[in-house]
Amino acid sequence: MKATCVISAKDLKTLLRGLNALVSEARLHFTDKGLRVRAVDAANVAMVIATVEPEVFEAYQTTEDDVVVGVDLDRLYDVCKSLDSKDIADIAITNEKLTVTSGSMTYTIAVIDPSAIRREPKIPELDLHAEVVIDASEFKKAIAAAEKVADEAIFEKTSKEFKIIAEGDVESVVYSADSYKLIEANSGEARAKFSVEYLKEFCKAAEGTIRIKLGTDYPCWLTFNIKDGFAIEYILAPRIEV
Amino acid sequence: MKATCVISAKDLKTLLRGLNALVSEARLHFTDKGLRVRAVDAANVAMVIATVEPEVFEAYQTTEDDVVVGVDLDRLYDVCKSLDSKDIADIAITNEKLTVTSGSMTYTIAVIDPSAIRREPKIPELDLHAEVVIDASEFKKAIAAAEKVADEAIFEKTSKEFKIIAEGDVESVVYSADSYKLIEANSGEARAKFSVEYLKEFCKAAEGTIRIKLGTDYPCWLTFNIKDGFAIEYILAPRIEV
Amino acid sequence: MKATCVISAKDLKTLLRGLNALVSEARLHFTDKGLRVRAVDAANVAMVIATVEPEVFEAYQTTEDDVVVGVDLDRLYDVCKSLDSKDIADIAITNEKLTVTSGSMTYTIAVIDPSAIRREPKIPELDLHAEVVIDASEFKKAIAAAEKVADEAIFEKTSKEFKIIAEGDVESVVYSADSYKLIEANSGEARAKFSVEYLKEFCKAAEGTIRIKLGTDYPCWLTFNIKDGFAIEYILAPRIEV
Repeated sequence: MKATCVISAKDLKTLLRGLNALVSEARLHFTDKGLRVRAVDAANVAMVIATVEPEVFEAYQTTEDDVVVGVDLDRLYDVCKSLDSKDIADIAITNEKLTVTSGSMTYTIAVIDPSAIRREPKIPELDLHAEVVIDASEFKKAIAAAEKVADEAIFEKTSKEFKIIAEGDVESVVYSADSYKLIEANSGEARAKFSVEYLKEFCKAAEGTIRIKLGTDYPCWLTFNIKDGFAIEYILAPRIEV
Repeated sequence: MKATCVISAKDLKTLLRGLNALVSEARLHFTDKGLRVRAVDAANVAMVIATVEPEVFEAYQTTEDDVVVGVDLDRLYDVCKSLDSKDIADIAITNEKLTVTSGSMTYTIAVIDPSAIRREPKIPELDLHAEVVIDASEFKKAIAAAEKVADEAIFEKTSKEFKIIAEGDVESVVYSADSYKLIEANSGEARAKFSVEYLKEFCKAAEGTIRIKLGTDYPCWLTFNIKDGFAIEYILAPRIEV
Repeated sequence: MKATCVISAKDLKTLLRGLNALVSEARLHFTDKGLRVRAVDAANVAMVIATVEPEVFEAYQTTEDDVVVGVDLDRLYDVCKSLDSKDIADIAITNEKLTVTSGSMTYTIAVIDPSAIRREPKIPELDLHAEVVIDASEFKKAIAAAEKVADEAIFEKTSKEFKIIAEGDVESVVYSADSYKLIEANSGEARAKFSVEYLKEFCKAAEGTIRIKLGTDYPCWLTFNIKDGFAIEYILAPRIEV
């Protein structure tokens, strides 16, 4: 056994769904400071970063500082999504396999040689000075509406408000929230355009609140604070007109 | 601004769904006596008539006696159907566009030149002397069952009961309600056959109660009383055997 | 009228769904000891046995010891599945047709000449000495998970536990329940492999508890005890490796 941990089935499903929203395979790092995952999608457009601190787990143990395991997220999420959210899940990792036990069910999946999976990307250093925090449910609603009229959405932050703008040929959808509606907002200003398709995928992991960091024509950095010690972050490259 | 009004998102969705059940485009008339819409489908088989009195709106204002605006109902309903039913919706109309604002979302859609949309039909004068009122939920159930066995349904009113009859090759479905079950019924008698496909579409707007007026081999006239001052009516031509 | 009976719409739907899970047509026997149905599927892999004692019906009457009626289960279940589970259903059978009346709806379907339907199979005598009783919901969960990784599932009973094992190429799913979790279990031991596709169909009728009888490389015998006097049983042939 290289690592074992116990986590609520609900959190496990949120984690796998959040990763699988962007990539089909990933390397999970069971480090002595908790679970860490970083991956970029095949098109190099977005990055996902998952952080699960040890305190999120009901039990957490690794035999090395950094136990790395390659997993097929499509398959793993497919079986795990039917776990009962009220159950807890025991995860056990060996050199050959990853096992999830929850209730009366045990799922075992062969692990993938980590070297066969694309290397983790570096987390970029970005100067994103505009920042807001909004309800995940509001964000989901805005992206769902945007999707109906366009395949791109503009995120616009002024000193007074935050907007998500989607413009179609004959129609447009605008989500707008002023400082009264926003959970948090700084005074930074920025504007950039993003793929609605990616944003929609990210919404799958949306729970609680979302911190959005922006810079003009820079990537956006979305942080989904699932709970204390558990975050899923996405960095999405902008679409830039030429 | 040519007209502005405020209506519950729930009522707006019901209205658009009811119109869109029959037509893709329509002229909305914001008159000084409320919103009025009349349209026939492309096949000339059915007519929809919507009436929303000023008191149904939380606010209602027009700059002319009859502000006419052409709208693409497919698109407008598609975006509006995701509005939160508990919200209210602000509608604003200019020469160029119709805007719906609800919660943090603003939808804007270019209006269509009314002259490009088929003219409103005259409301026919029909002598429909048989009349019943039934629960919309019962009507929906009857049409859903009829749809499984046939593409035509017979509406039959005798002095004692009202029936919806669908006959397939080896099976039949009959909804029947006597005066005890009917909310209202007069003594008129009539029998006519209708397309189940149309009836099924009309069911989308079904809420509350439905008044059904019939004449033998005449059109049926369905009035969906959504609430006081708000009605959606359909007039459906019969299928007549030769 | 050859037979008439009154049964809760819920029970009627469970019965039809359970039969239709395996066969498209069947002979219903309204005997003086209740309703009896037996049928095998076209591939001769499984048998369904339904038993509804007279006390399950609110009223039950036959004119002969054994009124046999052939029915098209695909059609009959299709219309009956939309019955309101809280309603009761009146069933009336003549030489020509079967009529179900529930609430305001009456369904009539032509009966099929029983001689045109495959004869009832004999119930096999099987020595199945391993036996467990589990919750239908647990069984459903196990089969749904098994389906994701394989098209065969092994049922394994030891003196200590009962397992449902599905093995895919790179993953496996195991349901396991010890005597503490099982509702009932004897000391018998057995192991046999079955088609997940069939098991999944049987799950449609799963309610309450399931009694599973096994013999090594023998058919399994599943008894769904819907309620006192009402059981649906399936006998499923094993898949045997050569």
